[in-house]
This record gives sequence, structure tokens and C-alpha cells, in this order.
Amino acid sequence: MIRSTVVRSAVLILVLSLAAAAALHAVAQQPGLRRVSMIVTNGTVVTMDPARRILTPGAVAIDGHTIVAVGSPSEIAAAFAAGDVIDASGSVVLPGLVNTHTHAPMVMYRGLADDLALMDWLQKYIFPAEAKTVSPEMVRVGTRLAALEMIESGTTTFADMYYFEEEVGRATRAAGLRGVLGETIIGFAVADAKTPADSLKRTEAFLQEFAGDELIIPVPAPHSMYTVDGPSLVAARKLADKYGVPMLIHLAETADEVDIAKAKFKLTPAGYLDSIGVLGPTVVAAHCVWLDEADTAILKRNGVKISHNPESNMKLASGTAPVTRYLKDGLTVSLGTDGAASNNDLDMFEAMRQAAMLHKLATKDPQAVPAQTALEMATLGGARALGLEKKIGSLEAGKRADLIVVSMKGARQTPMYNPVSHLVYVAHGDDVQTTVVNGRVLMRDRKVLTLDEASVLADARALSVKVREAVR
Amino acid sequence: MIRSTVVRSAVLILVLSLAAAAALHAVAQQPGLRRVSMIVTNGTVVTMDPARRILTPGAVAIDGHTIVAVGSPSEIAAAFAAGDVIDASGSVVLPGLVNTHTHAPMVMYRGLADDLALMDWLQKYIFPAEAKTVSPEMVRVGTRLAALEMIESGTTTFADMYYFEEEVGRATRAAGLRGVLGETIIGFAVADAKTPADSLKRTEAFLQEFAGDELIIPVPAPHSMYTVDGPSLVAARKLADKYGVPMLIHLAETADEVDIAKAKFKLTPAGYLDSIGVLGPTVVAAHCVWLDEADTAILKRNGVKISHNPESNMKLASGTAPVTRYLKDGLTVSLGTDGAASNNDLDMFEAMRQAAMLHKLATKDPQAVPAQTALEMATLGGARALGLEKKIGSLEAGKRADLIVVSMKGARQTPMYNPVSHLVYVAHGDDVQTTVVNGRVLMRDRKVLTLDEASVLADARALSVKVREAVR
Repeated sequence: MIRSTVVRSAVLILVLSLAAAAALHAVAQQPGLRRVSMIVTNGTVVTMDPARRILTPGAVAIDGHTIVAVGSPSEIAAAFAAGDVIDASGSVVLPGLVNTHTHAPMVMYRGLADDLALMDWLQKYIFPAEAKTVSPEMVRVGTRLAALEMIESGTTTFADMYYFEEEVGRATRAAGLRGVLGETIIGFAVADAKTPADSLKRTEAFLQEFAGDELIIPVPAPHSMYTVDGPSLVAARKLADKYGVPMLIHLAETADEVDIAKAKFKLTPAGYLDSIGVLGPTVVAAHCVWLDEADTAILKRNGVKISHNPESNMKLASGTAPVTRYLKDGLTVSLGTDGAASNNDLDMFEAMRQAAMLHKLATKDPQAVPAQTALEMATLGGARALGLEKKIGSLEAGKRADLIVVSMKGARQTPMYNPVSHLVYVAHGDDVQTTVVNGRVLMRDRKVLTLDEASVLADARALSVKVREAVR
Repeated sequence: MIRSTVVRSAVLILVLSLAAAAALHAVAQQPGLRRVSMIVTNGTVVTMDPARRILTPGAVAIDGHTIVAVGSPSEIAAAFAAGDVIDASGSVVLPGLVNTHTHAPMVMYRGLADDLALMDWLQKYIFPAEAKTVSPEMVRVGTRLAALEMIESGTTTFADMYYFEEEVGRATRAAGLRGVLGETIIGFAVADAKTPADSLKRTEAFLQEFAGDELIIPVPAPHSMYTVDGPSLVAARKLADKYGVPMLIHLAETADEVDIAKAKFKLTPAGYLDSIGVLGPTVVAAHCVWLDEADTAILKRNGVKISHNPESNMKLASGTAPVTRYLKDGLTVSLGTDGAASNNDLDMFEAMRQAAMLHKLATKDPQAVPAQTALEMATLGGARALGLEKKIGSLEAGKRADLIVVSMKGARQTPMYNPVSHLVYVAHGDDVQTTVVNGRVLMRDRKVLTLDEASVLADARALSVKVREAVR
């Protein structure tokens, strides 16, 4: 009885599969339909297009790397056929999230030391761990782990600053993520360079290696105004201009940084960078916690983009960036997680939620940074910050196909009155079911396709033993 | 070929199952072993016992409602045998989380209206929705949905304040959760009572219905000092004392409440409640955002317990409770999510994380509310707040078996240097695999066993249509 039931089931599955394949073939061949590579349909589509349309339900047609149409499921079905159809019923489809500030390999130091004063944290844990463990291998293993976490939590583009950034680039390309990847330039000896001059040389080689890459934009990342000398800052900016790429830098993260700048240059950090001519519209400044109104005017005049990192700023007690002022002044504000050593994860949904929560508290105004604004920062804001707003950040025909499908089917998301509210106030990275970058499915139904999860995790765990030993 | 492989696999599974059953039977019958109902083994066990032991790995033996032993897997295996063995490899086992302030049925208003000034939010959305939709059915449907979410996110005990609280009690008992459930007493006509006197009568009937229940402690919940008159507040406290149960109340949630108290009574909210004699060690005061040092002394003198709700306080811009001061003064501080209309979920992991983050920022001290303290608030702190510290809050022989198994196997949790750090800074409710309350498995491997998920969600979605119509 069991035997015959099993056999009958197997035969039934086979017959159904053949029927489905035949039906699909018929659709694909139906005259008048344009054949495309993929259709994502039946979900609530939060487009982030200029009208901020939300299609309930909607569909997105993708051909190759590019979105070719966004419309209702019936409109899309009437015009396109695809071999790969992703059913997003019960889910929200939105542009992939853009993390504009992290240090991907630092996932290896996740939770290594928390709840410490900044200097203890750096000097007793992070610096010793980095001195003993940063290597091409650590950067490779760490970036793969970070890429796995980012794909699983709906980040499709990230801006990074670390060492051996060519390893970050190779691992990111292999994982299929989009990256604006910064080789660090810093004023003391580090694992991949003895001097800023060495760093600058490494950076140029890195810029050449990835020039013209479809997914990777290699950029210089001078660490900050307090760790890099003026000439090296200027050289970094010139390098960025020579290759037509952005430049990443930390700016005004702590009150200490402001004190250092004033003591050394009688200027604020922003004032100093402006005085040596390194600011401009291709500069992405991370943190910007301690900018006064004159500093904000400097950023505005230069077109500098801001990466706001609310979780890191809270956990390290750095302060509250005056984001509502930046938004009012018309500055571009994007969101970052910062490295996992100070967050402790790379979940951009949490960054959105914290941005919405923190500024309500800080301004005593429950209307500050509404859900729509937080979502804007994490999508279009991120795209604008990285100079990629013509390519990514919204679901519109002609843009690259970077999108995610977020399930809203569970108890936590029920009922759903407003998809944007749910994306910001209840969604977790874990709710992301499917992640598509440049038209390629990196994760489908929670299964990451471009990385071998078991070996990524095993490599990270093996390396973590060395990290633990380094700080004993 | 396919046919024979399928058959062979089926036969193999059958043979293996029989072998496993036989082995289990042999173990169960092994002489010298005490037969117990359940063993949870091979996980990292965060006990929260007086020594705050963390067993890596550890095991917990449970018999009936009670924990009978906590030790290493080999110690437990040498002394106990159980038919139900839960393998917690790669996971952390810890006491179930205790949510000391929520309004469970308000999950039905989750995300109905956000980013609004408090009065608009209440008057345009929440009050109209409640006036038109609060009913025994709504409370039943809402509580089932909330119970599903709480079981799925590792909450094992919750303190509630709402209307038709007997429906909350019945649904909570059926779901298998532990609850300190408060019938609301309020100074204006509401769905289940026209006057405070009606409410008090309802409350006493409710207290009688659930008297002596193993899981449910029915309590009076006068809403606040600004919505309930003095005599009714006093009557509520007397009712609590008569039945030997706690009393729940909102206290000093907003600066407005302080202004009202001062205008009306020339006292602070805490001063007023003290002056009429309703404070005491069985009182659980939710929020406590605006207590000055004299108020803190009043709470300390009366042994009042605090429920801190960081997410709600941030989202509604109510302010920052001076939690580090309360802890320094030796007050009992527990954690709550508040209702899902102002959070927007019931995830106690987020409450822990937000408590740790918020007070670092507020005190400019990255050492404030370390992970261990946040975890303490959500476990033992919650147990103490509700007068249940002899029954729950830690994993110790003799306590009730309320525990959760939290997976740490994913990319987001890799590597794991410190389980407590991960519980607070990276875990989500979704990482909870298994939830046990009073020795009963409510969820196993993410499958909730005490509620029919599909019908709970379908009922909530159907009801949400009416809610939406009520606020159009």
C-alpha cells in the first residue's frame, strides 16, 4: 500500500512537471508577447518612482540586467513572457536596499567586544585583533560572510571601506552584489600598507583592476581628517577624480573629532576638509553626527552626500546626527549600518527603523522621519549618495534590476494596512525571500545561490578561533 | 530506476524509524535513570541563575511543569531519560522572555496609523477604531494573533491591559502562554463598561473566573492617574489586595501627564498616587519616563516595579526614561513592548536591543545598559516585576519550565564569541526555534502547536477590513 502510493505520487509529480513545462513553452511562444528573462508578479510593488506609486498588486518585467516594465500583473502578462516567473503573492516587492557605510570583513569581529568605552574597545580589542588577523584571507572569508548576510537581508548595493579591498571586490563580484568599494588610506602602518603613500599606490592599482566592472566601483577611502594628513587627503580626492569615481570618508563621527580639528587647525572637521579642497558632490561622508549649521552649509555648497548610521552612533554613544535639519536643508541623506563590530549586524531594515525611531525621540516630534522618509534614505537616498540614481534606487523601466521580495505573510506582519509602515516598523532582514541584483537571482525563497552557505560559515567559524586568540 | 530508488528510500526510512524507536525505548527503560518528560540538550544554556552560569554546552531536564535539573549534557544524560529530547545544537537555550507591558488585541491596529502627533493618532485613528471595533470577538481574534506572534518570538509570559480581558484570558490559556492579565478600569465609557464602577464589577468577576489558574493571573488595571478618579484607583488597589494579585497602571508616560497632575493636584503623577495610597510592591508601573528624583524615591519606598518600553517611548516621542538612574537606585526594571499600535510588533528581542542602545545614547556612555543588563530586564527583571521570581525568569531546578531555544546558526549570528551579546545585539524573534511554557512545547522548530496559524491569520485579515472601514 505504502509502496504503490509512493510510486503513484512520483509518477503524478513527473506528469505534472511535464505538463507545466509544456504550458510554459506555450506561453513563451505565444505571438505578440515579448520574451524577457524574468517576471516578478502578484506582490505589492513599492516602486519608489517619481510618483512614489505603490501597485497593489503589481509586476516587474526584467530582461537581462534591466527592468523593462512595471505595471499591474495583467498589463505585464499581456505584454511579456518569461521562463522565470517569481510569484510574490503576500509579499512586498521593492528596490534593493543600499547600505552606504560598512566595513564588510569586520563581521569577523561581530560581538567580540561590546559595551565598552570607545578607546578601550578600539585599543584592547579591535586594533589588536586587526593587527594580528587582517590578511587577504581574513578579508576574503569576512567579505563572503558579510555578502551572505547582506543577500539574506535584502541589501543589493553596499559602500565599503577596508584593507585589501581588492579581495572585497573579488568576493563581492563572485557573490553578485553591487559595491562601491573603498581601499582605506590611513596615516599609520596597517596590514596592507606601511604609509599613506603605499595606500595611495595600492588604491590606484585597485582602481585599475576593477575599472569598468559592471557591479564594482572601486574608490579611494581616506579614513578621516584626524587619521590622514592633508596632502594624502588631497591625493585621494585627485585619484577619485582621475578615475571618475566617488570618495568615501568618515566625518564628524564624535565630539572628540571636532576637538581634534579645532585644536590642530582652528577649524571644524568639515571646515578643514573644505579648506584643503577635498569636498565635492562625489564625496560620501559617513556619520556626520557633529556638524553645526555652518558645517551643514559647507556640505550643501559642495554637494557632499551623507551616510547616516543611527545604530552605530547609538551603540558607541557617539551622539545623534541632526538628520531632520539635513533633510530640511535639502542634503542627500542615505543610511548605513557601519561595520558589524559596532552594530552588530548588517540589517538595513533595522537601520531604517532606528532612523525613524531616533529622530522622533531627538526632536520630540512623532512626525519626524516618517516611514516613507526612512525607506527613501535606504533606497533612492543611497543611490543618490553613491551617484547611482540613474541606475538603481527605484523600480522603473530602464533601471538595473536590483529588487527584493519581502514576505508579509506571518503573524508579525498581520494585518497589513500600509506596506511602507510594515517595511520600516516591523520587517526584518529575515523576511526577505528573494534578492535580485542586476537581473540575477542571488537568493530565491531564502536559498542563496551564489555562495555555498555551509562553507562560508565553516570558514568564518574556523577563522574566529584565531580572532579570539588574538585578543585573549 | 527512479521507481526502485523511491521505493528503496521509503523502505530505508521505515527501517531507520523503527530502529530509532527501539533505541529510544531502550534508553527510556535503562535502569538507574529517572524518567522525565523532556530534555533539552546540546545548546549553550544561559541559565540566569544566581551565579549567571552559562553552560557551553548544557542541558535542561524537565518533568511535567517543572525544571528538575540543569547541567552538562553528559550529567543530564547520566541521570535522566526522556521520551522527548530536544536537540539544541548550534542554539542558545534561555529562560522565556517576559513582556511586562502590552495590549495584546491592539495587534489589530498594527500600522493603522504611524508618524502622527499623539493626539491626532489617538483621536483620528485609535479611539474611532476602538469605539467601532472593540468587541469580545475582536479581543479574541486579536489575542490569538498576538499569542501566535509572542510564541513565535520567544515571549512566554506577558502582562496585558485591555477590555473584555476574560477573552484575553481564555485565548491565552488556550495558546498555552503565561499571562498577568489586566482588565482596564477607566473614567469614561468604553466598549466593555460605561463607568469605572461597571469596570470594577467586571474586574472582580474576571478575577473570580481565573482564580487559581495555573497560567493566568487576573489583575485590575486602572489605566492611569489622569484617566481614572481617585476613589476608583483606590478601589482597584483594594481589589488587587483582596485577591492577592498585582495591579497594572500607566505612570508618567508623557510630560503632559505631569502637567495634568500638577495642575489638578499640585503633585507629580507618582506623588499623587502615593498620596492616595495606591502604590505598593505589587504595583507594576508602565513607562515611567518622567519621574524626578523625588518620584524615584517614592517608587523605591513603595517597592513599585517598573516596566520600561523603549520602542514605544521613541516612536511616540514620549521621551527617555532615566533607566540607568532607576538601576543605580536598585529599582526593579523590566521590559515591555507596549501595544503593536505603537511599536509595531511584540518582539522582546527588539525591546532588549533598544534598551541597550537608547541608554548608551542618552547617557553618552557606551557602557550603559550592557547586554547582560538588557537580558536581565527581559527575564529575571520581568519575573520580579510580576511577583513571579520564584516561578520563572531563570533556568533552575524547581522553577517552572518556561524556556526558549534560539538558533545561532545563520550568517547574521556568525561567529559567536559571546551568546549574551548575540541575544541582545543580533537576535530577532524569528530566530526562536522552540518555545516551552510550563513544560509544554508551544512551538517546535518554528511550528506553533497550540494555535492553527492559518485560521488565526485568516480571522485577523477578515477583521482588519472592518478596522480599516472604521477609520476611513
